[in-house]
Amino acid sequence: MTKNLNSDKFRRNIVSVPVAQAKILAYAQQGEMELVPISEANNRVLASDITAPHPFPHFRRSGMDGYALHSLDTRGCNNEQPVQLEVIDDIPCGSLPSAKVERGMASRIMTGAKVPDEADAVVMLEMTETLEHEGKKYIRIKREIESGKNITPVGFELADGDRILEKGRRIGTGEISVLATFGYHLVPVVEKPRVAIFSTGSELLQIDEPLQDGRIRNSNTYMLVNQIREAGGEPYMLEAIEDDLDKARQRVEAAFTEYDIVITTGGVSVGDYDIMAELVREPSTELLFNKVSMRPGSVTTAAVKEGKLLFALSGNPGACFVGFELFVRPFIGAILGVSKPFLPEFQAVLGNTYHKINNFTRFVRGSLTFEGGRLVAYPAPLDESSVMVTIKDSDVLIVIPPTNEGVAAGKLVDVLMLPGGRFT
Amino acid sequence: MTKNLNSDKFRRNIVSVPVAQAKILAYAQQGEMELVPISEANNRVLASDITAPHPFPHFRRSGMDGYALHSLDTRGCNNEQPVQLEVIDDIPCGSLPSAKVERGMASRIMTGAKVPDEADAVVMLEMTETLEHEGKKYIRIKREIESGKNITPVGFELADGDRILEKGRRIGTGEISVLATFGYHLVPVVEKPRVAIFSTGSELLQIDEPLQDGRIRNSNTYMLVNQIREAGGEPYMLEAIEDDLDKARQRVEAAFTEYDIVITTGGVSVGDYDIMAELVREPSTELLFNKVSMRPGSVTTAAVKEGKLLFALSGNPGACFVGFELFVRPFIGAILGVSKPFLPEFQAVLGNTYHKINNFTRFVRGSLTFEGGRLVAYPAPLDESSVMVTIKDSDVLIVIPPTNEGVAAGKLVDVLMLPGGRFT
Repeated sequence: MTKNLNSDKFRRNIVSVPVAQAKILAYAQQGEMELVPISEANNRVLASDITAPHPFPHFRRSGMDGYALHSLDTRGCNNEQPVQLEVIDDIPCGSLPSAKVERGMASRIMTGAKVPDEADAVVMLEMTETLEHEGKKYIRIKREIESGKNITPVGFELADGDRILEKGRRIGTGEISVLATFGYHLVPVVEKPRVAIFSTGSELLQIDEPLQDGRIRNSNTYMLVNQIREAGGEPYMLEAIEDDLDKARQRVEAAFTEYDIVITTGGVSVGDYDIMAELVREPSTELLFNKVSMRPGSVTTAAVKEGKLLFALSGNPGACFVGFELFVRPFIGAILGVSKPFLPEFQAVLGNTYHKINNFTRFVRGSLTFEGGRLVAYPAPLDESSVMVTIKDSDVLIVIPPTNEGVAAGKLVDVLMLPGGRFT
Repeated sequence: MTKNLNSDKFRRNIVSVPVAQAKILAYAQQGEMELVPISEANNRVLASDITAPHPFPHFRRSGMDGYALHSLDTRGCNNEQPVQLEVIDDIPCGSLPSAKVERGMASRIMTGAKVPDEADAVVMLEMTETLEHEGKKYIRIKREIESGKNITPVGFELADGDRILEKGRRIGTGEISVLATFGYHLVPVVEKPRVAIFSTGSELLQIDEPLQDGRIRNSNTYMLVNQIREAGGEPYMLEAIEDDLDKARQRVEAAFTEYDIVITTGGVSVGDYDIMAELVREPSTELLFNKVSMRPGSVTTAAVKEGKLLFALSGNPGACFVGFELFVRPFIGAILGVSKPFLPEFQAVLGNTYHKINNFTRFVRGSLTFEGGRLVAYPAPLDESSVMVTIKDSDVLIVIPPTNEGVAAGKLVDVLMLPGGRFT
């Protein structure tokens, strides 16, 4: 008997990248709010708008070291006819004025200190001469000072109730400065989604094992840990799944009870040993897609199980990296409620002709430079799915649309900025 | 008796930003090496070159699921005259070939598995038909396969001994992938410099204290914590220094015994309460500069004490932020041994006319956008030294050279990219 053994595993429904992204994002539910200390808030995402609980500054603040005075007292003074004012108070930062500044008087004041209510200007120290006479202090001023000079009015930066930071904003240095200013020592942020990572495939050596012929070290897991942290998730490295369908099923089901997202890497090819492809066909699982019209990573798979997402990324390092950036990063971002969860997209000039042809859209690792006022993206010399070594030098993914003749140097191409990307 | 009370505190030697940076960097000594687990290596800096301890890949790797064969066996075959090969082995990933592939034979092989030494090509699964006949398996192929097809040769990405990562390189996702691939579960990095932060000034409220008239919350310390971490240092928030010279001296001296760098923020103006200005004039201290021809932050001060650096940054949030980015960040970078410790510099079009005039170079906070193929930098609406609220929206510092007429929109300006900066 002659039998064709090719199974229906080959039948995969191809979706485009935007369709695949939309299918995934439909399942993103924003995470719960938690309060974290401000010193641990960096790179977290705000769970609610932050409004100013008071104007800023909340008192009339001196912008200079100098003297608070009545500007009218300086009217008409000049080098020949300086005005002389008696110094009646001394206001360091954090102190309140202790004497009333009448006409003809001035109060010594520090940068940042509260200006006496009666005074309408501050003259800077360097524009004054100080004198002592019969135990009293005086200053001399030789130039007119305009009303309001060197005084920052109440609410100059922000009014009471102003929205200062919006929900979904990622917290960095400037946000921390604002939060501290307004006394937010606990910051409302979205809980980090807990992301389990399984590597699959018995070919994988632990990172600290000696090399063996025919086997490779498990590098994707460590790469994913870093990508997940950057994206704002909390990664959990689980023990590698072996190539056994029943064990794999148990392990993945257990993971779904404990984690918010499950990622596998490896074992999604169309061969006889394809575990993940089987798993996403189980009745309890809804397959979202198992083929995307892209290179690398066309076999990237996503499925939903009890409302949670399973991403089966390629075991090839380049494809695993790209699959995470295009699909998992935006999903984590959407859970966190960020307004723009996708990699930033813009146009650049292609630096070298890209020769490869393909029916699928390619996401080619590239470096970004700034030359003569233009952004130029250079494709990495090695961009195969299996290639690991060029990930580290990549600033962008260059989007090469389906083409049967390549794309010439000098053409404008879309590029996606990678999280660690820079241009030089 | 009439006496001029103005002291020599006003005398400050002005240096330019590049001169100030050079004075600082002269004191940067590279830190010691330590080994950290790869999972904690992100954003650390390599203390030594990393070389490949073996070629990568280290075995002839199949790039496809399919069959390993002799390409000569497919010579001349076509749709009408398919070639039929006996399948004699099955090589999953991580396993070694168990049978020799003679002419007329083929071995089933998985993506990533070791190709048998005798085979010179792999045909992809989809290009074959499988048959069973009298208990034996066969494949049929209808197209010629060229020699080398779908086989990644040994050392395709890296040869044994290749330098794969250079000393001074900051570790991110791509570097982690490489390190894991080559088994570096412990990574040689430069120890993080320990950076003490003092705020000065009795006007400061703790972040969780209720607001008081005339006083502000200590926000600079939290901002600096974040900047130090981003730069690769380990921040230590010390109790604020009160405005008392003796106490301040003791506190700063104690800090120098325990930390590698000491930063103060506040208390560097020219007023009567200026503690830091006194401190850097002590005999045991070498003043590097106490005035820089820049805005904001012209009173930024740096001094050396027992070979360690003291940075006295402005208490104004905007000036403190800029002072850190221009001086402390590169110093930390130099200690870590990074090759380019300064903020990346490039040119952009000025989006709005900048009207302010100044004798000093201004570092104006700005946002960066990408419009019609050009990078455009927009100055923040509020860029005063004292302003805190625009730090969060800044991608770049726009460099406005000394000018007595401002800079017109459309002119090219130098910009410095901030660590959290993006362009949209």
